[in-house]
Amino acid sequence: MKRRDFLSTAALGSAAGVLATPALAQARPNVSWRLTSSYPKSLETLYGISDHVARRVAEITDGGFQIQPFAAGELVPPLQALDAVSEGTVECAHTLGSYNIGKDPTWAFDTSLPFGMNTRQNTAWLLYGGGLELVNEFIARANVRSIPSGNTGAQMGGWYRKQINSVADLNGLKLRIAGLGGEILSRLGVVPQQIGGGDIYAALERGTIDAAEFSGPYDDEKLGFQRVAPYYYYPGWWEGTANVGLYINLDAWGALPAPYQAALEAACTEAMTHCVAKYDNGNPDALMRLVSSGAQLQAFPDDVLTAAFAESRKLYAEYAEANENFRKIYEHWSVYWTRQQQWLRVAELPYDYFTSAQIGR
Amino acid sequence: MKRRDFLSTAALGSAAGVLATPALAQARPNVSWRLTSSYPKSLETLYGISDHVARRVAEITDGGFQIQPFAAGELVPPLQALDAVSEGTVECAHTLGSYNIGKDPTWAFDTSLPFGMNTRQNTAWLLYGGGLELVNEFIARANVRSIPSGNTGAQMGGWYRKQINSVADLNGLKLRIAGLGGEILSRLGVVPQQIGGGDIYAALERGTIDAAEFSGPYDDEKLGFQRVAPYYYYPGWWEGTANVGLYINLDAWGALPAPYQAALEAACTEAMTHCVAKYDNGNPDALMRLVSSGAQLQAFPDDVLTAAFAESRKLYAEYAEANENFRKIYEHWSVYWTRQQQWLRVAELPYDYFTSAQIGR
Repeated sequence: MKRRDFLSTAALGSAAGVLATPALAQARPNVSWRLTSSYPKSLETLYGISDHVARRVAEITDGGFQIQPFAAGELVPPLQALDAVSEGTVECAHTLGSYNIGKDPTWAFDTSLPFGMNTRQNTAWLLYGGGLELVNEFIARANVRSIPSGNTGAQMGGWYRKQINSVADLNGLKLRIAGLGGEILSRLGVVPQQIGGGDIYAALERGTIDAAEFSGPYDDEKLGFQRVAPYYYYPGWWEGTANVGLYINLDAWGALPAPYQAALEAACTEAMTHCVAKYDNGNPDALMRLVSSGAQLQAFPDDVLTAAFAESRKLYAEYAEANENFRKIYEHWSVYWTRQQQWLRVAELPYDYFTSAQIGR
Repeated sequence: MKRRDFLSTAALGSAAGVLATPALAQARPNVSWRLTSSYPKSLETLYGISDHVARRVAEITDGGFQIQPFAAGELVPPLQALDAVSEGTVECAHTLGSYNIGKDPTWAFDTSLPFGMNTRQNTAWLLYGGGLELVNEFIARANVRSIPSGNTGAQMGGWYRKQINSVADLNGLKLRIAGLGGEILSRLGVVPQQIGGGDIYAALERGTIDAAEFSGPYDDEKLGFQRVAPYYYYPGWWEGTANVGLYINLDAWGALPAPYQAALEAACTEAMTHCVAKYDNGNPDALMRLVSSGAQLQAFPDDVLTAAFAESRKLYAEYAEANENFRKIYEHWSVYWTRQQQWLRVAELPYDYFTSAQIGR
C-alpha cells in the first residue's frame, strides 16, 4: 500500500480522530511538481537528468513527492524555461543559466564561462568555494534558486566545412554558436549564427553557414554533421564545463517540507554525477564511430586559442566595469580560477598527461 | 511530531486496528545501522562522507533510517572494516577495497589501480561502464556490496628527504607505501615500509625511513612532513583516483525497504561528489601554504614514470595469468582504460592544458 493511499483511507476511517494529521501532513504531504526541460527527449542524457530526479525523489519519498518532467516545447519553449519557473507556471526547470545572458551576463556564472574552470573545478567552486551562494543571491531577483543537476563535461569545438589554420581563417566565418563564446568569436571576425538544432544540418549542407558547434561526440553523433562539415575541432573552449541547474521557484521551494528538500538536493547531485558519467562513458565510442564515418579531428591552432583567451578576459573586464552584479561574482571567480589552475598543473594534469600518453604500451 | 513517534503512539491507541500496519511497517520502519569508517575524525573530509551519508538518509527519511558512524578504531580497527561488515558486526563501512589485496588483488578494482583511470573516468566505468557490476559480483563472496561514496582525486607522490633524479635513486629507498604501488616500486628497488600514520613523522625525522606517501596537500598539511622531508613529488601515480566504497552487508541490504535503499544510494553518490569537491576546494590553498612553509615541489622524472608504468602492466599481466577473478575484470578494465585515454586527449586534456597555462595572462 502506498503512503498516500494510507493517508486517504485513514482520513475517511475511524482512525481519523487519532491521527495527528496536521503534523503528519507537514512531514509527508503529497506534493506534485511540474518540471520543464530545455532539452528534447532525443538528447537522452541531458533530458535524462529530469527523469532521474523525478524517479529518485518518488522512490525516496515512497511516492509522496511527485515531479512530472516535460521535454522542451511540451509546456514551454526551451529558452523560456527560466521565465516559466520565475512566474510560477511550473515549479522547476532543467536549463542553463547562460541562456539568459541577454538579460544580464551575470547569469553565465551558474553554467560556465569560456576558458573557465573545468567540471570538477566548477563543481568545487559552486559547492564549497562559495559560488552557488553568490549565484543564488543574484538569481533570487527572478524568484528562483539553482541546484547543480547535470553537466556535459568539456565539449567539442564544432564542425567546420574548411580547416581553421589561423585567426585569419575566422574572418567572416559563419558559425552557429550562441552565448559568450559567440560574443568572443565575433571580436575575432566570426559572424555568429542563431539556428535551431533541427535546421543546422541543411544550413551546413547548403553552405548557408560554414560551421556549427553543438555538444560533444555522444550528442553530436545523432546529427550526422560529419557528412557535410567533416573537420571536427577541439577543445570546445567556450564550454569547458556546462552546469545544468535545476532552477526552482522560491515560493515552491519554501513550501516544500524539509525531507523533500533534502531528497531533491540529493537527487540533483546524484543526477549531475550520473550525467557526467554517462557522457564520459558514451563519448569515447561515439568519437571512434564519428572518425570511422568521416570526421577529421583537428586541434584549434594555438594562435586561435591565445587570441580567444585574451578576448575573453577583455570582455569580462568590460562587463565587470559596467555591471556591478557581474563584477562581484567575477572577482571571486577569478581568484578561484587562478588557484585551481595552479593546483591542476601539479596533480591531475601531469597524471592525465603521462597516463594518456601510454596508450598501446 | 516525528514519523516514528506517530507509529509507536498509533500502535498503542485506538487506531491500531485500522492501520494496515504490515504494509506501512514495510514502507517506513525504523531502521538503525552502524557504520565503521577506516578514517579518523582528523581526516575530516574522508571521515566526513560518513557523517554526510548518515545525516542525509536521516533527513530524507524523516528520521526513519538512522545510521550511526564510528571513526576508525572506535568499534573496529581501520583495516578490518570490511571483515566487520562481512561478518555482520556492523551493517556497513566506509573503506577501500584495496586494503584487502592481501586476500586477492582483485579487490583493488573498486578503489583504483596504479596508472589507472582518473576520477571521472573511473566513476564512468563504475556507474555506466559495467565496472560496479563486475566488482559487486566478485565481492559478493564476502557477503558485501559496494556503492561509490567518496574520493580524493589524484594524490601526491609523497615526501622525500632527498631528490629522486632517476630510477637509480629508488634503489634501497625506504618509502612508506602500501598496496599495489608498493609492489610495483619494490620491483624498481624501493623497500616499502608499513608504518601507521601517527609514527611516520618520527621515522622521517630520525631517518629510519627516507620517504613517505600519504594523500594530497589538504590531508598532508596536517602532518607537517615538509619540515623533515621537504621534497614533495607529483603525481601520485599509484592513486590517480581512490574510490571509497560504502561496503554493505548483503543481508542488511536485502532487508532494507526500497525507499531506504534509494535514499542510501542517492546519499552515497552525493557524498562522493561533495568529497571530491571538498578536496578540490581545499587542495590549492593547502599546497600554497605547504610551499610557503618549506615544501619543494618536484615532478617525478620521466624515466621513473615510464619504468613504473611498464612494471605496473607486467604485474597486472602476472595477476591475470594466475588469477581468474583478476583476469576477468582486468580485461574489461583495460579496454575501457584505452578508450578513455583516447577521448581524454581530445577534449578535457587539451582544454586543461591550455587553460591552466594562462595563469597571470
